[in-house]
Amino acid sequence: MTDLFRLSASEAITRIRAGNLTSEALVRSCLERIESRDAHVKAWVHLDRDYALAEAHRFDRAANRGPIHGIPFAAKDIMDTADMPTEYGSPIYRGNRPASDAACVALSRAAGGVLLGKTVTTEFASRFPWGKTTNPHNPKHTPGGSSSGSAAAVADFMVPMAFGTQTVGSIIRPAAFCGCIGYKPSYGEVSTMGVKENTGSFDTIGLFGRVVEDLPLFRAAVTGFAPKALAAVPVDELSIGLCRTMYWDRAEDYTKTLLESAAHQLAKAGAKVSDLELGGPFTEFEPMGRRINDYESSRALSWERNHHWELLSEFQRGKLGAWLNISYEQYREAQAVMVECRRYLDQAMNGFDLLLTPSAVGEAPEGLTNTGDTTFNLLSTWTHTPCVTLPVFTGPSGLPVGIQLVGHRNQDHRLFEATLAVDSVLSEKR
Amino acid sequence: MTDLFRLSASEAITRIRAGNLTSEALVRSCLERIESRDAHVKAWVHLDRDYALAEAHRFDRAANRGPIHGIPFAAKDIMDTADMPTEYGSPIYRGNRPASDAACVALSRAAGGVLLGKTVTTEFASRFPWGKTTNPHNPKHTPGGSSSGSAAAVADFMVPMAFGTQTVGSIIRPAAFCGCIGYKPSYGEVSTMGVKENTGSFDTIGLFGRVVEDLPLFRAAVTGFAPKALAAVPVDELSIGLCRTMYWDRAEDYTKTLLESAAHQLAKAGAKVSDLELGGPFTEFEPMGRRINDYESSRALSWERNHHWELLSEFQRGKLGAWLNISYEQYREAQAVMVECRRYLDQAMNGFDLLLTPSAVGEAPEGLTNTGDTTFNLLSTWTHTPCVTLPVFTGPSGLPVGIQLVGHRNQDHRLFEATLAVDSVLSEKR
Repeated sequence: MTDLFRLSASEAITRIRAGNLTSEALVRSCLERIESRDAHVKAWVHLDRDYALAEAHRFDRAANRGPIHGIPFAAKDIMDTADMPTEYGSPIYRGNRPASDAACVALSRAAGGVLLGKTVTTEFASRFPWGKTTNPHNPKHTPGGSSSGSAAAVADFMVPMAFGTQTVGSIIRPAAFCGCIGYKPSYGEVSTMGVKENTGSFDTIGLFGRVVEDLPLFRAAVTGFAPKALAAVPVDELSIGLCRTMYWDRAEDYTKTLLESAAHQLAKAGAKVSDLELGGPFTEFEPMGRRINDYESSRALSWERNHHWELLSEFQRGKLGAWLNISYEQYREAQAVMVECRRYLDQAMNGFDLLLTPSAVGEAPEGLTNTGDTTFNLLSTWTHTPCVTLPVFTGPSGLPVGIQLVGHRNQDHRLFEATLAVDSVLSEKR
Repeated sequence: MTDLFRLSASEAITRIRAGNLTSEALVRSCLERIESRDAHVKAWVHLDRDYALAEAHRFDRAANRGPIHGIPFAAKDIMDTADMPTEYGSPIYRGNRPASDAACVALSRAAGGVLLGKTVTTEFASRFPWGKTTNPHNPKHTPGGSSSGSAAAVADFMVPMAFGTQTVGSIIRPAAFCGCIGYKPSYGEVSTMGVKENTGSFDTIGLFGRVVEDLPLFRAAVTGFAPKALAAVPVDELSIGLCRTMYWDRAEDYTKTLLESAAHQLAKAGAKVSDLELGGPFTEFEPMGRRINDYESSRALSWERNHHWELLSEFQRGKLGAWLNISYEQYREAQAVMVECRRYLDQAMNGFDLLLTPSAVGEAPEGLTNTGDTTFNLLSTWTHTPCVTLPVFTGPSGLPVGIQLVGHRNQDHRLFEATLAVDSVLSEKR
C-alpha cells in the first residue's frame, strides 16, 4: 500500500468506487511522496496538507460528487485560488489571495477533485525567467516551462493530475522533458476565467497525467460534463500524417530517428502513415505568432509595468519596450496570417486522423536557466488544434523523449481515442 | 466656467494643451455635476473624489502622459481596480479589492486618464437583475444594461468617457436609451485581462462618449498607441447597407420610420444606400448565440455557484441549471453556426462601407426591472464586427432613439471615419 501515489487517476477511481481505496489514503500517500521528494524536485510553491486531508476525509463520507471524486490534483500558480496564495511566479504578487477560484479549479473541485496545492510557474507563464523546479530524472536538467512544477510533480508521482497552461509550449515541452503525458486542448475548450492572462488569443488550459485514460476525466471535470468512455480504435484504421514541420533542422538527430522509428512501428502495426508537409502561409508562421504573443502579453501586463517596474524580471523589462512598439497594423497582419495557417492546416489534415510530430527538439537541456526550445509546440498551439505528448522514448542522456500527436480542432475526444491506439502500439515495443 | 463638465474629451484635451484648462478644474466640475445629479441618476457605485482631484493636480504639473492626459473617466464595476472596490454587481464580492487593475484601466491611467470611480453594472454583466441606475432623461425609465451606470453617467454629463462591456447588447442598448454615443470594438481589440468574464467568446470592452472624435482617443488609450486622426470621408463616397435584420418585426413602428428616414437623409446627401438582407446561416443566429452565452457564462460562474449559491440572484439560480445541461455537441454546433454567420456577413458586406441598423427596438422601456430588448445588438456582437450607436432621434415619449452603424471586422478606424460623415449629415437635420 506504500505505492498508492503511483496510481493514475482512473485506477484510483476504480478502486475508490469498489470500496478498496479511500481518498484519504491516496492523498496521504501523495503527501508522503512529496515530503520525501520535493526538496530535490521543488515542484510546489504552496501545499496545504491539512486542508487536503480534511477534504479527502469529507469526500470519503460524502455521495459521489463527480468524475474525479476523491482524486488529488495540483494547479499551476497562475490559476486563482480563494483559499491558497496565488503568486503568478512574480514577487509583485507575494501572498496574493484572490477573491475566488479560477473556473477550472472551481469546476474540478465541484467534480470531486482534492486540490493539494499550487505548482511552480515561470514569471507570468512567460518563456523566462525559470522557476526553482528541477527535472525529476536529473536535477541538473530543466523540467521545461512554464508549467514546470505541474510537469515535474506528475512525472515524479507526487500527484496523478496537475493543471497547466500553454501559450507557446508550456505544457507539451515540460511534459516531454519530465516524461509524463501532456494534453493541450483545442483553444477555447476550457474557460480561462481566473487564470492570469498571457496572450488571450493563444492561452489554453491543459493537463499533465500519466495514462491516456485520465485525459477524458480531466476534460469532463473542467467542462462540467460526465466523462465519455474511450472507444477502442484499431490501429490499422488510423491514418497518420508524419509532420516534420518547417523546423525539422532544429531537431536533434536522435529526435528525428526516434520519431521516424515511431512512424515505422505504427505503419508496421497497420496504420496508414504518410508525410504531411506544411507550406503556403506557414513560411511566416513563427514570426507572426511570436508577434501576437509579444503584442498581447505586453498589454496584459500593463498594470505590473506601470506600478511595479522594479519587481519585473530583467527579461520582462528588456522585452516590454520592443513589444509595445509593434504597430496595430503589424498585429492585424499577424492575426491574418494565423487565420490563413488554420485554414491551410484544416485542408492539409483532411483524410488524416492525426499528425505525428516531435514534442521538443530533444531531451531536457542541462542547466535550469534555459527552459528549452518551443519550436515544435508552435504548430498546435497557434492553430488552436488539440495535442498530446506521449513519453515513449529515452534519449542519449537517459532523459525522456516524447512524441506529439495533433488532432483536428474541437475533436479532442477523437484525438484521445487515436492516442490510446498509438500508445498501445508504442508501449508494447518499449 | 460652470459648464466644464459638458466638454467632450477631445474638446478638453485641446484646451488643456493650449493651457486654457487644468485637469483639476475639469475633474472638479465633473465631481460637482455628480454631486448635484447622482441622487437621481444613481450611476456610481464608488467615487473617489480626493484621489481624482489629487491625480488631476499631479497630472497638471507633469509632462504629457499620453492621448487622454488629464481626462476624467469611469470604469464599469466588472473591471478590476487595485485602489477601488470591485464588486461585479454581486453581494458575493462586497468590498472586494483586487490585487491589480484590469489592463484597460491600467493602460488608460498610463495614457493620462483620471479614474473618477466605478459605475453600476447588472450582476456579472448579465441580462438581469437590474441595477439602481435610472435613465437621465426620465427616472421612471431604465437606462438599459448591463453597463447602466457608464451610459447614464456620460449621457448626464458627469464624465466625458466611461468604459463598458458588451456580451450581447450591454453597450449599444444603454447608450441608445440614455442618448449618448456607444462604441463596441471588434472582438479581441482590447485586452479583457482583469475584467470579470461573462462569455469569453463574445465579451468586448468598449466606450460611452458624447462626440465621434472621442472614439479614436479611447482606442489609443486602451491599446497603447498614439491616436490616429480622423480623415474626412465625403458622404457621397459612402456605400451604406440598410440592414433591417431578421428581427425587423420586433422594432417599434417609430423605430422603423426613424431608421428609414435616416437612410433617406443619407441618400439625399449623396450616399449610396441599398438594402442588405441576411439569410443562410442567420436563420439560426439568435438561438445559437444565446446557447454560447448560456454555456460559457455558466462555466465562468462556477466558483460563485458552488460557494455562494444563496447570494446569486434568483435569475442566475433559475438559469444556471438549464445552462449546464447544454451538451458539448450542442455548444460546438452553435460555435460552428457563428463561424458560418461571420463568413456570410463578410461576403454580404462586400462593397458596403457600413451597415445601418436599429440600436434597439425603441425608446427605453418604462420601469427599472427590464433593461430592454437586446435583439438589434446580436448581429454586431456575435459576428465580432465593430459598431457605434449615434443619438440621432427622439421617440414618442421624448426619450432618445439611436441608429447603429456596423463596420468591417478589425477596421474600427474606418468605421469611425464613416460615422463622422454620417453624424455630420444627420446632426445637421436635427
